[in-house]
Amino acid sequence: MRDVAKAAGVSVATVSHVVNDKPGARIGDDARRRVQEAVVELGYRPNALAKTLSQGGSRFIGLVADAIATTPFAGQIIHGAQDEAWKHGYVLLVANTEGNAAVENDAIAMMLEHQVHGILYSTWYHREIVVPDVLQQVDTVLVDCFAADGEFPAVVPDEEQGGRTATEELLAAGHRRIAFINTTTPSPARTGRLAGYRAALEASGIEMDESLVFSAEPQQEGGYRTTPRILESGATAVFCHNDRVAMGLYDGLREAGVRVPEDIAVMGFDNQEVIAAHVRPPLSTVALPHYELGAAGVRVLLGLESDESHRLRIACPAVRRASV
Amino acid sequence: MRDVAKAAGVSVATVSHVVNDKPGARIGDDARRRVQEAVVELGYRPNALAKTLSQGGSRFIGLVADAIATTPFAGQIIHGAQDEAWKHGYVLLVANTEGNAAVENDAIAMMLEHQVHGILYSTWYHREIVVPDVLQQVDTVLVDCFAADGEFPAVVPDEEQGGRTATEELLAAGHRRIAFINTTTPSPARTGRLAGYRAALEASGIEMDESLVFSAEPQQEGGYRTTPRILESGATAVFCHNDRVAMGLYDGLREAGVRVPEDIAVMGFDNQEVIAAHVRPPLSTVALPHYELGAAGVRVLLGLESDESHRLRIACPAVRRASV
Repeated sequence: MRDVAKAAGVSVATVSHVVNDKPGARIGDDARRRVQEAVVELGYRPNALAKTLSQGGSRFIGLVADAIATTPFAGQIIHGAQDEAWKHGYVLLVANTEGNAAVENDAIAMMLEHQVHGILYSTWYHREIVVPDVLQQVDTVLVDCFAADGEFPAVVPDEEQGGRTATEELLAAGHRRIAFINTTTPSPARTGRLAGYRAALEASGIEMDESLVFSAEPQQEGGYRTTPRILESGATAVFCHNDRVAMGLYDGLREAGVRVPEDIAVMGFDNQEVIAAHVRPPLSTVALPHYELGAAGVRVLLGLESDESHRLRIACPAVRRASV
Repeated sequence: MRDVAKAAGVSVATVSHVVNDKPGARIGDDARRRVQEAVVELGYRPNALAKTLSQGGSRFIGLVADAIATTPFAGQIIHGAQDEAWKHGYVLLVANTEGNAAVENDAIAMMLEHQVHGILYSTWYHREIVVPDVLQQVDTVLVDCFAADGEFPAVVPDEEQGGRTATEELLAAGHRRIAFINTTTPSPARTGRLAGYRAALEASGIEMDESLVFSAEPQQEGGYRTTPRILESGATAVFCHNDRVAMGLYDGLREAGVRVPEDIAVMGFDNQEVIAAHVRPPLSTVALPHYELGAAGVRVLLGLESDESHRLRIACPAVRRASV
C-alpha cells in the first residue's frame, strides 16, 4: 500500500479510502484516478486477512459436506452455495467429512478458528440429524437435513410436492394404474414421496391400491429385483423412488422383453447426473434441487430469506425425457 | 487469551507459549496444566487469522476445480487433497468454476488475497491446458492436467499403464481377440490407453488387428451404437474407453441376447461411482486414481514429492468384478 501511495503521490490513508471505497471520504477525482492507475500498474491486492481482522467478523462461510467424493449431490450443493456466497462478497471454506465424526470435528474447529460468519451443515441425502454440539457456538443453517426440535433453521427439498409432481406426470399421460417402488430406508423421502403419490391419485379421483406400493433398496439392484412383481401387478406405469431404482427396473424390463414407454411408463426421482439422461430411453424424472438448496442455505444464513416453520422447502421440478 | 491468562494465573506470554507449543519455552508443568485447563474451561480458540498474519505466509492451499457439480471426479480430487493438506496443517480453500473463465479469475484472485501457500489447478478429465497467466504469481501444481511446455509441475493418471492393465485382465482370462472401443475425443486418455492396449497385446505375442479398434463418443450412447460392429468383429472381449461406454454396450448386447461375460467379456475404465458396481453384471474396470491425484498434488506443492519430468504419473489399478 505504501508503494501505491508513493507512485500516486498521495498518502497511505488516501489509498486505503480509494481501495476500500469508503463512503464519505472526500478525495479529488484526480487523486482517485492516480491511485487506481497505480493499483493496476503495481498489481496491488488488498490483503484479505488484514482486512478481516480490522473489520472484525470474517467474510468466510463454512460448508461442511458429508459425501463430496462419492456423489455428485454434494458438489451441486457446493456450487449453489458458492455462487450465492460470492454474490454477497463471501468466500466458502469447504470441508469434506465423508461422514467421519473426527474429521467433522476438526473441520468445524478449523472454521471457528477462521471466525466464519456462519456454517452450512449439509448431508447428501435429506434426513433428520443430531446436530454436533459445537455448532451451538456459531450461526448454523442445516442444508438437506434438519434437527428434530427445529432448533436450527433448515433448507430441505419438498419431497411431498416432488412425489405429487412425478405421479401427475404419469396421470397426465393417461395412466390410471400406477405402481410406486418406494425405498426401504426410513427417511423424509420415503414418507414425503408416498404422501405426494397418494395426494395426486386422490386429486384425480383414483382410489389408492395398496398392492401397487412396493419397497426396495434404493439402488439399481432394488429396482431390478422388483421387476417380476411390477409385471404381475398389471401396472401400466411405475414411479420409482430414485433414478438408480429406475435404471435397475429398466434392466429387468429389458430382460422380460417389455418396452419403455410403449408397454410401461417409468418416472424416476433425483435427475441424477451420469444416469438419468443416458439410460435407454432417457429417463423422465423429478429433479432434486441441490443447487438451490445450497444457494438458499446461504441466503438463510445471511438473513436474506427465512421460513416461519424454520424449515424452508425447495420445489422439485419435473424433467421430461422419453420414458413416459 | 487474556481471560485464559487471568484464569490460570499466568502471563499472556505463557498462554501463548503453551497454546502454540513453542519449542524452547521453559514453562513449569503446573503452569502448563493450569493453562490447558483454562483453555478447555473457557473454550478458548487461537485466532487462525491473527496467527497467519503474525507468522507471514498462510496455512491455506487453494484448489480450483472445474466440475464439482457435474461429476464425482472433482469430489474425489478434493477429498484426497483435503486429507493430505490437513495432515500437514493446511486448510483447503476450494473454488468450483464449472469451466467459466470469469469465475475462475475471481476464484484465483480471492485465493491470492488470502495469501494462499499455493494453488492446485485441477480439471475433471486429464488434458492439456493453457495455464491462466495469473497463476505465474503463485506456486501452482496442475492436477489431472498439464501445460505443453512443462512449465508447471503436474500430477496425472498413467493412462498407458491403465490401458495395459485393462487389456492384461482380458488376456489373463484367456481372450485373444480383444476389441477396443476408444473415444473420439483427442486426449491423453485416447493415445495413452491405445498405447497400453497395443503394448499388452505385443507382450503376449498377439499381432495387433487394427480392425478391432473402434471409435465412439465417450458416453453410453457411443457404446450402444458400436454394439453391432463389435458383434460382427468376432471379438470375445471388449475393452471400453470408459464405464459409460461399457454401460451403453451392455444395453446393446442385452438387446442382441448376448450375455456378459459368458458370450463376451467387458472391461471398463474409470471405476465410476453410481455405475461401475451397479450395472448387471457388475463391471470389471480400471480405476482413475482421483483421490491419489489430489493427495499427490498437495505433496508436490509442499515439496514432499517430485518428478524429474515435472509430470508425476499415478497408477490406475484394476478393479475386478463380474464382467470378465
